[in-house]
Amino acid sequence: MTQADLDRDLDALTAELDKGHVFHSWSAQAALKPLPVAGGLGTKVWDHSGRTYLDFSSQLVNVNIGHQHPAVIAAIKEQADKLATIGPATANLTRGEAAKRITALAPDGLDKVFFTNGGADAIENAIRMARLHTGRDKVISRYRSYHGNTGAAIVATGDWRRIPNEYARGHVHAFGPYLYRSEFWATTPEEECERALQHLRRVVECEGPASVAAILLETIPGTAGIMVPPPGYLAGVGALADEHGILLILDEVMAGFGRTGEWLALDGFDVKPDLITFAKGVNSGYVPVGGVIISNEVAATFDDRVFPGGLTYSGHPLAAASIVGALDAMQAEGIVDHARQIGAEVIGPGLAELADKHRVVGEVRGLGVFWAMELVADPATREPLPAALMGKAKAACVERGLLPFVVDNRIHVVPPCVVTADEVGEALATYDAVLTLLDGEIA
Amino acid sequence: MTQADLDRDLDALTAELDKGHVFHSWSAQAALKPLPVAGGLGTKVWDHSGRTYLDFSSQLVNVNIGHQHPAVIAAIKEQADKLATIGPATANLTRGEAAKRITALAPDGLDKVFFTNGGADAIENAIRMARLHTGRDKVISRYRSYHGNTGAAIVATGDWRRIPNEYARGHVHAFGPYLYRSEFWATTPEEECERALQHLRRVVECEGPASVAAILLETIPGTAGIMVPPPGYLAGVGALADEHGILLILDEVMAGFGRTGEWLALDGFDVKPDLITFAKGVNSGYVPVGGVIISNEVAATFDDRVFPGGLTYSGHPLAAASIVGALDAMQAEGIVDHARQIGAEVIGPGLAELADKHRVVGEVRGLGVFWAMELVADPATREPLPAALMGKAKAACVERGLLPFVVDNRIHVVPPCVVTADEVGEALATYDAVLTLLDGEIA
Ligand SMILES: Cc1ncc(COP(=O)(O)O)c(C=O)c1O
Ligand SMILES: Cc1ncc(COP(=O)(O)O)c(C=O)c1O
Repeated sequence: MTQADLDRDLDALTAELDKGHVFHSWSAQAALKPLPVAGGLGTKVWDHSGRTYLDFSSQLVNVNIGHQHPAVIAAIKEQADKLATIGPATANLTRGEAAKRITALAPDGLDKVFFTNGGADAIENAIRMARLHTGRDKVISRYRSYHGNTGAAIVATGDWRRIPNEYARGHVHAFGPYLYRSEFWATTPEEECERALQHLRRVVECEGPASVAAILLETIPGTAGIMVPPPGYLAGVGALADEHGILLILDEVMAGFGRTGEWLALDGFDVKPDLITFAKGVNSGYVPVGGVIISNEVAATFDDRVFPGGLTYSGHPLAAASIVGALDAMQAEGIVDHARQIGAEVIGPGLAELADKHRVVGEVRGLGVFWAMELVADPATREPLPAALMGKAKAACVERGLLPFVVDNRIHVVPPCVVTADEVGEALATYDAVLTLLDGEIA
Repeated sequence: MTQADLDRDLDALTAELDKGHVFHSWSAQAALKPLPVAGGLGTKVWDHSGRTYLDFSSQLVNVNIGHQHPAVIAAIKEQADKLATIGPATANLTRGEAAKRITALAPDGLDKVFFTNGGADAIENAIRMARLHTGRDKVISRYRSYHGNTGAAIVATGDWRRIPNEYARGHVHAFGPYLYRSEFWATTPEEECERALQHLRRVVECEGPASVAAILLETIPGTAGIMVPPPGYLAGVGALADEHGILLILDEVMAGFGRTGEWLALDGFDVKPDLITFAKGVNSGYVPVGGVIISNEVAATFDDRVFPGGLTYSGHPLAAASIVGALDAMQAEGIVDHARQIGAEVIGPGLAELADKHRVVGEVRGLGVFWAMELVADPATREPLPAALMGKAKAACVERGLLPFVVDNRIHVVPPCVVTADEVGEALATYDAVLTLLDGEIA
């Protein structure tokens, strides 16, 4: 057998083991044919036989620093040689270094980190803190949001994934600003902002402000469609929360750590949350980790009172090392600035051109490396492009060597922060070809 | 400055960063003085200044293979060089290899694995599967149990940690067999078994069997006190579940992968669950991971129907590599057999001697490297030793260079599976000294 045969065999073995033994997230299992991935570097991933793909999904929008960044890999290996795991009841230097770097990036007055294993359990613990700090039960979150798959996080979620999983109490949902599909009969960003705030205020009033522990929002809703809030919205939510002693939890799991061209997405807005949840971009997911950044007021609630939450791998040293490695490299290499610039100068203008050219594109929106193209069957009615055509679009991208991020009727353009102008050009050409196909389908 | 000064400074820096920026699990934060840990090997860990401790906690009973096993570290580093992270929608060879090894250790007919980040989210997803497979809501679990800190897992939990976190519906608790503190006025193991089964049957009947999705049990309750079920109990639960179309979920997060001297704790009993949750021992926690082993019947429910659960790091390659490394090394080095043998021949007899000698020891029980010493203020009434004395006991162990695992009125004797007879001897001597102190306190 040649090396090429062997490599092909490894792809076949990968598929066989996957089919036989691996149960996949958010899917019907029988028809799955998952792409085998063996390696990657930067914006590229490849299978065993050497077929390479340009990753404009950043997987689940987590590989902000790109695949296999050498500084992060080195940090992981170095820590692995020292101490891979240690319990959360100990103190560990690498864990402290990670917490110091994270809190340095947060607004003043949020000085502590509670580490979790990912996004969902970060949300769980932020909600726990808010409830115990306020002595109140209810959590208000948005329709059109995703917060994770565990008990409270899934019920806080606003999308379809909540419906089969609704086993928790104390959750209320409200609509947020989304001018392209306004829930408030608004026609301008200013109107959408004002009305969304008025709606949220009415929900708070009708629920009873004294029963509301927290308002939980993705700073910029991610999976739900990258709806950048209009100027003044988040500041208005913060003021509403303050008025009633309600905590503001900003979920930065997807939007944080470079994605928007800022260290935190909230840096782009005039808002100060009480709790910030993070995961994904903090270490680009090289080791599973997430957490909650905690205001000093909330932290003080648990100075003398037991915090009733915890997990075996809270503050895991290997995860902490990958955070230190990733944040230091992002800083040293100007990766966040790069994300802002390429968004403003290359991705944004390129997508605007596609929107002008293609009837199927209803709207493009975003910033940094965090963009959505909303595809419609009819630009006048804004009827979403049907699922079957979205499936075709996805397959057509993959065939052309591009991994897209497809949700509902949207293609999210979410490459690693390190993406180059040339790579954006390549991806735009692929989208262009695929959108041309779709234009034909809806003609 | 000398190297010793530098190392002392690192311990001070560790403490300072911890105090300033790290929020800890299950604790009031103000008074915490967590032990700094910089490194480890086998059953030992040490701080920066070289003070070494014998780890008879295995941290949170997860470091089954011992600290820094070279084969597991090598597997992590090798995978880090290939591909640290990839999304769950792909296929990945290392992930498939891990799933193959795990299912090979499970009973026949459980062929698939859904990977999570830890124990709690494994329970969340097992409960989700059971509810959707049966179309029923309720989950019956034990008082005296721990299943994790997320929404459903914490409400399934039977211990005090549930009380401040009770925001989920559909959970019911029953008592399990625990002869030393029988809830059933039993005086023999046979009686305890029969009555515990009768009690569980009555709870199922009173809840309405057709409303019960699952019975969720730790195969051997761990944190709750290592109550090895009497012969016939788990088989009886399995039969009761089958009779009513209820799924049996066995939580092997703490008991599994060598801890009991078996690959899975359930191997020691005549029982076949529908779902098995795991974490900890599967890779000794070197990378955060957990999961659910799924029966073919339950998996088939999601062949053509979307499974509504998932997470960004499901099937993480670095975690998968650490599983392959750990399980292969445990197999090659006979580590599980060693755990069984040292439990039967050294730990068990040694603890029995301590129980004979010390008035403060109410009972010792366990198997493999999974033992509890129950400490009492009065052997006649079995009144638990008060918290203040347990705190003293813990401090006295640490002072003597032993990391103990202390819960409520118990010291759990839970070293890594690789512990040697000499190390057990050393630990027994420490326990002996500490128990002598305690005998004095209750005299
Ligand atoms: C905003 C947001 N919050 C929470 C989560 C859940 O994170 P995880 O999948 O790590 O549990 C996600 C995942 O996509 C997310 O986008
Ligand atoms: C039996 C059992 N189930 C679940 C869990 C939760 O695991 P994790 O802390 O990884 O969420 C634990 C943790 O101690 C456990 O012992």
